[in-house]
Amino acid sequence: MATHPGARNLDDDCAVIEFGGEALVLTHDMMAEGIHYIAGQDPADVAWKLVATNISDLAAKGAEPVGVLLGYMLGHDDARFLSGLEEALAHYGAPLLGGDSISGHGPQVLGLTAIGRATHRPVPSRSGARPGDRLYITGQVGAAMLGLEALRSGRGDSRAYRRPTALLAQGQALAPHVSAMMDVSDGLLLDASRIARASRITLSIDSKAVPIATPEDRRAEALRWGDDYQLLFTAPAEASLPIPAHEIGEALPGSAELLLLDGLPLGDSARLGYEHG
Amino acid sequence: MATHPGARNLDDDCAVIEFGGEALVLTHDMMAEGIHYIAGQDPADVAWKLVATNISDLAAKGAEPVGVLLGYMLGHDDARFLSGLEEALAHYGAPLLGGDSISGHGPQVLGLTAIGRATHRPVPSRSGARPGDRLYITGQVGAAMLGLEALRSGRGDSRAYRRPTALLAQGQALAPHVSAMMDVSDGLLLDASRIARASRITLSIDSKAVPIATPEDRRAEALRWGDDYQLLFTAPAEASLPIPAHEIGEALPGSAELLLLDGLPLGDSARLGYEHG
Repeated sequence: MATHPGARNLDDDCAVIEFGGEALVLTHDMMAEGIHYIAGQDPADVAWKLVATNISDLAAKGAEPVGVLLGYMLGHDDARFLSGLEEALAHYGAPLLGGDSISGHGPQVLGLTAIGRATHRPVPSRSGARPGDRLYITGQVGAAMLGLEALRSGRGDSRAYRRPTALLAQGQALAPHVSAMMDVSDGLLLDASRIARASRITLSIDSKAVPIATPEDRRAEALRWGDDYQLLFTAPAEASLPIPAHEIGEALPGSAELLLLDGLPLGDSARLGYEHG
Repeated sequence: MATHPGARNLDDDCAVIEFGGEALVLTHDMMAEGIHYIAGQDPADVAWKLVATNISDLAAKGAEPVGVLLGYMLGHDDARFLSGLEEALAHYGAPLLGGDSISGHGPQVLGLTAIGRATHRPVPSRSGARPGDRLYITGQVGAAMLGLEALRSGRGDSRAYRRPTALLAQGQALAPHVSAMMDVSDGLLLDASRIARASRITLSIDSKAVPIATPEDRRAEALRWGDDYQLLFTAPAEASLPIPAHEIGEALPGSAELLLLDGLPLGDSARLGYEHG
């Protein structure tokens, strides 16, 4: 979920390994109370989000869920957590295979490992974008930002923040057509820069083409806020996409800049998004 | 690592699932500072233990490691943690496949998911012990208890607590011969009762036959203390074991008691061991 230079490769992507002639896709995300969710937030929502964020990683690989392992620190309402967990796991067809539960002294910390099976080879990665490819996103960004504001203020619809959707079916449909794919968890610009870096290209993004859930005057924020879990992908210009998606830019040959936003360099990662963690 | 009634099946065992015609073995353990390790303990030792406890779960399934995913909360010396992690992963031949790292406000919490491949079918479980089987343990219990005391007092050898050994080769060798197997993480008596419950038998244990690392006057404690990671298993009386092991009891038909210790019932789980968690 977050990135730290010291922990090499921990946050890069799902792990994809060959196992029994198939591609096993593995991902693990942690969430800490007070950092990734609000202390006192409904545990059912926390459970949903923990599941959805991990399943979203599988979605970006075009994988189907095999199951999950839960690392659970007891909290203020474990029954409520379990009810949200069951709801999310049923929704995504991912059985609870096992895990561990502990009690703790401090803020609650949760971990989830999601296990999936790739439905298409090669398994989409971040590194396959080529100059000339087009850049797409499956839907709006900024909805989770508004949802968090609603949750904090107690006014408005907070669902997009509390109950994000992992785009499993879309990821599986797209996998045969994309050259690179990832889910947008840390902000569109930051995550796009990761595709650019991994693919050794420059991504040129047309900011006005990005669908946003916010008023127009908050477009810049929407492009930098995370937690929306849209799929961000590249595909050859001639690709016929199986689902609707918004073309928001194109891949250029690698240069000193990872991103161009409306033609201008965006070199400083501090301006790209949020590395909460 | 620990057991909570609310979290169903979380701590039962490794998950074993069919994947690509092979048996995939998955386990996830969490460790919290101040509960599973001492605040301020050498992070390299903490990393080693986190790896060893999870690999030990694979060992009890006769599995070989495929890799691990790490859930890492930044701590007081991340470089030292990574050095212990690398040492342990190299020792067990388990690559770091991915994971997540976060910062946190409270005591450090760590999670590790170990992924393995079963080397023998059927994969040993806790539920296969049959009346007439003999009960064995691979080595001494009580060593980790003495090690923890040494670590706390600053006197004596704390290695058995700090650097437990997962018995991977032994587990793989034993897998074709056992009727049930698990690793002793929470204490010999408590873990034996889990085999008895899962197998619907009674295990009769000869306490004097159990090899202990402690002086004789601490035998009762040694039988109840965890963290030694010996393999505890049952096998038919006529089985020819491929490695040395200590016969410490036998399986009787199921009764009201899960355990008999020197012929006497041990019905109260509170007297069986430590559920630190």
